[in-house]
Amino acid sequence: MTTTLHAFDSAISLADNGTGRYTGQTTPEFANMVGPFGGVTAAAIVRAIESHPDRIGEPVALTVNYLAPVNDGPFDVVVRAARTNRTNQHWTAEVRQEHGLTTTATAVFGVRRDVWSDTEATMPEAPDPESLLHTTVPGPVPWMRNYDMHYVEGGVPTEPAESASSTTTLWVRQRPARELDFAALTALSDVFYPRVFLRRGRMLPAGTISLTTYFHVDGAELGKQGTDYVLASALAQRFARGYFDQTAQIWGRDGTLLATSHQIVYYKE
Amino acid sequence: MTTTLHAFDSAISLADNGTGRYTGQTTPEFANMVGPFGGVTAAAIVRAIESHPDRIGEPVALTVNYLAPVNDGPFDVVVRAARTNRTNQHWTAEVRQEHGLTTTATAVFGVRRDVWSDTEATMPEAPDPESLLHTTVPGPVPWMRNYDMHYVEGGVPTEPAESASSTTTLWVRQRPARELDFAALTALSDVFYPRVFLRRGRMLPAGTISLTTYFHVDGAELGKQGTDYVLASALAQRFARGYFDQTAQIWGRDGTLLATSHQIVYYKE
Repeated sequence: MTTTLHAFDSAISLADNGTGRYTGQTTPEFANMVGPFGGVTAAAIVRAIESHPDRIGEPVALTVNYLAPVNDGPFDVVVRAARTNRTNQHWTAEVRQEHGLTTTATAVFGVRRDVWSDTEATMPEAPDPESLLHTTVPGPVPWMRNYDMHYVEGGVPTEPAESASSTTTLWVRQRPARELDFAALTALSDVFYPRVFLRRGRMLPAGTISLTTYFHVDGAELGKQGTDYVLASALAQRFARGYFDQTAQIWGRDGTLLATSHQIVYYKE
Repeated sequence: MTTTLHAFDSAISLADNGTGRYTGQTTPEFANMVGPFGGVTAAAIVRAIESHPDRIGEPVALTVNYLAPVNDGPFDVVVRAARTNRTNQHWTAEVRQEHGLTTTATAVFGVRRDVWSDTEATMPEAPDPESLLHTTVPGPVPWMRNYDMHYVEGGVPTEPAESASSTTTLWVRQRPARELDFAALTALSDVFYPRVFLRRGRMLPAGTISLTTYFHVDGAELGKQGTDYVLASALAQRFARGYFDQTAQIWGRDGTLLATSHQIVYYKE
């Protein structure tokens, strides 16, 4: 029997070189305008930490800084446990290529405990994904073709009209469907096209500089999502002279708030 | 003439040991339950990067990870420019003490340009700080005494009553009054007591693990705030089995959104 690796698993597949050093390879399927989709680089970092023999617990927080584009070709991921506490562990990570450092990251992994818990945020109202048209305009970049996207609000602008709102809400899952895991959830936290496109009604130069994702579930809770759609919603609070922020939520269809995520994005006019 | 250094300036005062190495000293005024107030450690990191001769631009993003308590005494801050681009610069930073690494951080500094800008978020409604009682219950920890705090909503619980909302909004400024700069704004982004105290109506063990702040103004815009109060508002989206998130805004009284900030916090029952 021949099994074909899912394109996402190929994109984050890492060779283990020992002592926290891994080597991956960019794939054309996950190409962005320049270099690969930032979400897949973040996912490869999560996968590298998950693969480390000293790792305890599961992702709680991740910050990824995009210093320079990752060129097509091999890349090294170096991860290091900076501190191991009783119930959490702090990591630092770097992605390097021949031309130098492309990405820095820090992460917190941890063990969850059965203490008082509550979801205070409210899931956005949205019709079922099956009732929404599939996005007929494919995204402007290859990586978007790896996702089924059904926009509820704030789809990619198709005509030059400004919007007063930067909010985008969409049902999204990997294409072909794939069980949701932390690597996939990490990539989904960067699945939104730049908010400035929506406000200005057109594409313009923009790129994530730093992405922070907080995970609110453990692997067992995440596994319950299976291959179903998640509801992803994002907005910007301020566009400030070349840098805007984005704040996002990723919800399971069953109303579980899986992750919240924030980023700062560079833009030009 | 003798001038006395402001307690905040003393707390982030750094000796320059050359090549990105600085040494600071904890002060009793900024003590927290265990170790110093996390906001002042973050501020010292910003100050170290600002002091580096290779630094270009001003703070755009900062992530600080709290690995272990900083003990009373000296601490070393080591900062490194990981990459300098045309209009932004990526930094990594570490805080070390004799017992080891206590803090890791990454930061983006950048230059702002006069391009299309907009504030989409809405400033919370609040009566003027002068019309609100000063908080009569001093905070439970020394560092809080360095701030004038006038709570609009969600003050520190004084009786054991649960709250359905985790939102706290307060007018706050340094005490004694001090001109707002990036170091002070950084510390203010961590000025909120833990959201879980408000929801549960009591204090319980809780501590910030990772703090991310996005800055939306340059130094000139920040300077316009002078020594005035800022309006700081924070809420949690999910309390998830030992870790909750907090998302916050810091507004100038003139309606300028100065910073947005996010953190993940460890809590126990």
